[in-house]
Order: sequence, then structure tokens, then C-alpha cells
Amino acid sequence: MNKIEHLGIAVKDIETSNKLFEKLLGSSSYKIEEVESEGVKTSFFQIGESKIELLEATREDSPIAKFIEKKGEGIHHIAFDVTNIEEEVERLKKEGFQILNEIPKKGADNKKVVFLHPRSTNGTLIELCQEINE
Amino acid sequence: MNKIEHLGIAVKDIETSNKLFEKLLGSSSYKIEEVESEGVKTSFFQIGESKIELLEATREDSPIAKFIEKKGEGIHHIAFDVTNIEEEVERLKKEGFQILNEIPKKGADNKKVVFLHPRSTNGTLIELCQEINE
Repeated sequence: MNKIEHLGIAVKDIETSNKLFEKLLGSSSYKIEEVESEGVKTSFFQIGESKIELLEATREDSPIAKFIEKKGEGIHHIAFDVTNIEEEVERLKKEGFQILNEIPKKGADNKKVVFLHPRSTNGTLIELCQEINE
Repeated sequence: MNKIEHLGIAVKDIETSNKLFEKLLGSSSYKIEEVESEGVKTSFFQIGESKIELLEATREDSPIAKFIEKKGEGIHHIAFDVTNIEEEVERLKKEGFQILNEIPKKGADNKKVVFLHPRSTNGTLIELCQEINE
């Protein structure tokens, strides 16, 4: 685990929240990207070596729609940057963590991503991500 | 706002969670510190330029006890490192954010800290922190 790659924050309306986070961080979103497979629209802010990723659901069965329905807006996941995602998955499986998808999938921002089940991580949804072709 | 200084994660039992996060991050907690005024015991892990701060309540009226009762274990707040906390508070007040304590208070890890009300920040509790005597 190299660094916090990003923090994912579930929001109801990404345009409103973009303005809010621009004021908060004193900087602008550098990218808006839709991830069709996950049913989310994302917006990224750089802060130091990490990013803030705002997430708005684009359909009712999106994980973000379900999260907001259950818990309201707020921090949805922590993503850690890893050098070799397959090796990290193997290491964490051996350590007893529950992996949600063992085969990395394509996430936003040109990343291969794997999620750990929050049941095995103190209620915190953890994402591992590795830059594609880095 | 310079970087994510730390992420605060509310946990029921800091010893159990320490072992869990040691396995997850592949590194050890570098400090355990009790903040009597906040009713919390904290444990810090370094990850890149940021930290993970585990928080266990030390009494029933601790904000962490209330958080866990209401929402369960999980991410409690995001802390951003700032160079001049008084100036940031003034800037954010002008931008319309609600400040929970306008006078910075002494937090864990030798920091002056101010919290913003989650009502004004998409349900996300935000902490500003500045190293004391830096």
C-alpha cells in the first residue's frame, strides 16, 4: 500500500457538490467521468498526493444510490494505491480479508480496482487500485 | 488545504482494530495517544503523506461512542492539513461553511484543530489541522 489514492464521497447532486468542494478545497475539479458499469458519475479533485472523488448515482440500482438511501450522503470508501494489485489480493486473502471481486475490474481514472468487504474491515469499504499500464 | 492529513475511523475496540489495520496496511501503528478532552483513544498509521487514525471511545458521552451507536463502525472524519488555521477558518466562514469551533482546540498528534459542521459539507465531517509550532 503506497498512499491514499482517493476518498470516495457519495453525493446526491454532483453539480451542487462540485461547487461546494471547490469552495472547501480552494481548487477545481479536474475531471468528470461516468463509469457506466458501476452506474456512477464521478468528479475528481487533487489534494496533495491524493484525490477526492465525488460519486453521484446515475441509476436506481447503483451502489451509490443504495448507500445514500441507507446512510445518507457522506464518505463511501477509501482507495489505496498499490503497485501490484494481484499480489495484494493474494496477500490480503491469506490475512483473512474478504475480497468482493478477486478479478480486478476497470474503475474510473484509468485504474484496475478491487474492493474488500466492509464486514472484514471495521465497516469501512476499502478499494485497492493500480494505474493501468503504469 | 495542503493534503489529507489523516482519516479518522471510529472503532469499538482499538486493540482488535490495530491488528486488523496492521494486516491491511502491512505496517505498524506508530503511536497510541489518549485525548482526554474528546474522550477518545487514538492509534496512528502512516500511509504515504497521510495517516489513518483509529478512534475508540473512552467514555459513553464521547462523540465516537455516539457515532458508533448511530452509524456503526466506519469512517468518521477527513482531516486536511492547513498552513494557517485561523486564515482558513475565516475563508471558509465567508464561503458559508458552518464552523463547529471557531477557536482552534488541541487535538491528537500535536495539532490545532477545527471542525466544520457536516450539515454544510454533504454529510462529511471535515477537520482542519495545523501542526503546533511548525
